[in-house]
Amino acid sequence: MTSKLHLLANIRIVLCQTSHPGNIGAAARAMKTMGLHQLYLVQPKKFPDKEADTMSVGAVDILQNAQVCETLQQALVGCAFAIGLSARKRQLSHELVSARQAASQAVEVAGTQHVALVFGTEMSGLSNAELDLCQLLAMIPADADFSSLNLAAAVQVMCYELRMGLLDDAVENTNAATPLAANEEVEGFYRHLEETLLKIGFLNAAEPGRLMQRVRRIYARARLEKEEVNILRGILKHTQHPYPPKGN
Amino acid sequence: MTSKLHLLANIRIVLCQTSHPGNIGAAARAMKTMGLHQLYLVQPKKFPDKEADTMSVGAVDILQNAQVCETLQQALVGCAFAIGLSARKRQLSHELVSARQAASQAVEVAGTQHVALVFGTEMSGLSNAELDLCQLLAMIPADADFSSLNLAAAVQVMCYELRMGLLDDAVENTNAATPLAANEEVEGFYRHLEETLLKIGFLNAAEPGRLMQRVRRIYARARLEKEEVNILRGILKHTQHPYPPKGN
Repeated sequence: MTSKLHLLANIRIVLCQTSHPGNIGAAARAMKTMGLHQLYLVQPKKFPDKEADTMSVGAVDILQNAQVCETLQQALVGCAFAIGLSARKRQLSHELVSARQAASQAVEVAGTQHVALVFGTEMSGLSNAELDLCQLLAMIPADADFSSLNLAAAVQVMCYELRMGLLDDAVENTNAATPLAANEEVEGFYRHLEETLLKIGFLNAAEPGRLMQRVRRIYARARLEKEEVNILRGILKHTQHPYPPKGN
Repeated sequence: MTSKLHLLANIRIVLCQTSHPGNIGAAARAMKTMGLHQLYLVQPKKFPDKEADTMSVGAVDILQNAQVCETLQQALVGCAFAIGLSARKRQLSHELVSARQAASQAVEVAGTQHVALVFGTEMSGLSNAELDLCQLLAMIPADADFSSLNLAAAVQVMCYELRMGLLDDAVENTNAATPLAANEEVEGFYRHLEETLLKIGFLNAAEPGRLMQRVRRIYARARLEKEEVNILRGILKHTQHPYPPKGN
């Protein structure tokens, strides 16, 4: 039996706008115990910080190598699959799965491409705009009356499930052949789509938001492959310029 | 489906000689998020303590009801099954299982009797004398080079596994509320789509097959909801007749 644990190198943990540097340090420690090393920080309130170092105990190396980003989109560059963590059920139902199911999907994609697990702030979790950049929403099953895990504790549980997902013999790597589109490719498609929908008068320029969000959700669930993004953008090109001259 | 989560009341968490009161508080929070409430403390170094209260966030009730004991034996009174947690493999051949296997055995016993999960000190874990009072040794699979989870993080993982062991289906499918489109509705969309793609010149009328098949696959994976079919057909209408007159 060959271990698949090296695939953990393809999974990054993204912490958005973390308030307490101690939580960043504790999250780094949690990651390292499970064999994960790629930490991305989107606009951390205080970083680097002594409290982060203290709480990381022996995982200062992860903090030193952490990528600090201005936007979540930057933190997702190169990722084919982003999973957002949520403590509560959302109105706009992204596909919602348990932590375990999410981990199992994550390790499958990590067989060939990069994956991100995205955590929101301590107080309010991920914003809807941040969620829109994710393809899947995961929830750690918790008590309904007291569902708020500490941030680092949530990172611990997810990293634990990722590790378990790779230790599990039952993990077969199925659709390795068809590469998923990277985050920036899918975002490029969304921009092209919005522009087209405005042009044909389907979207109201004054308020494109909610409808656009619903359309994004459809494609988020489909998890687009690289080639499919090209096909869909081909459709958009023809929508904007129908009946191309011969030869195209 | 009747929930078995009430059996968590039969499972206690026992922390032996904890050095840092903050860890006790964080452990209480971890327990409560997963629906566990029975906390036993064997010779805690500092308890009660303000730092414990602070770290427990909303779980002060668990700290207030915690049983402080002089010996592990006292903390295990009434228990039929005690599981000791260990970060390393021990010489003394206790039966050693994974956290998940241990949780599965624990919830089975908790159906009729009391169970304890026993955690040692932050620095050195459980002593051999303490282990002798346990019937099973459990290990959270961790990186061999950095295997030391924070105490509260270990409590979080174990309580999470206990909860998972009692949940039949971790997250109920919340998307069930939003009805999926019926087959004939999706097929109606595909016909509309093909007609539109022919009209804008994206599909070659002589051979629409293969490309159309690829496009269908995208939406098949998304598993369209009723309302989404309406949205997508709205886009197709606007594609065929851009800039509709006011009132449409």
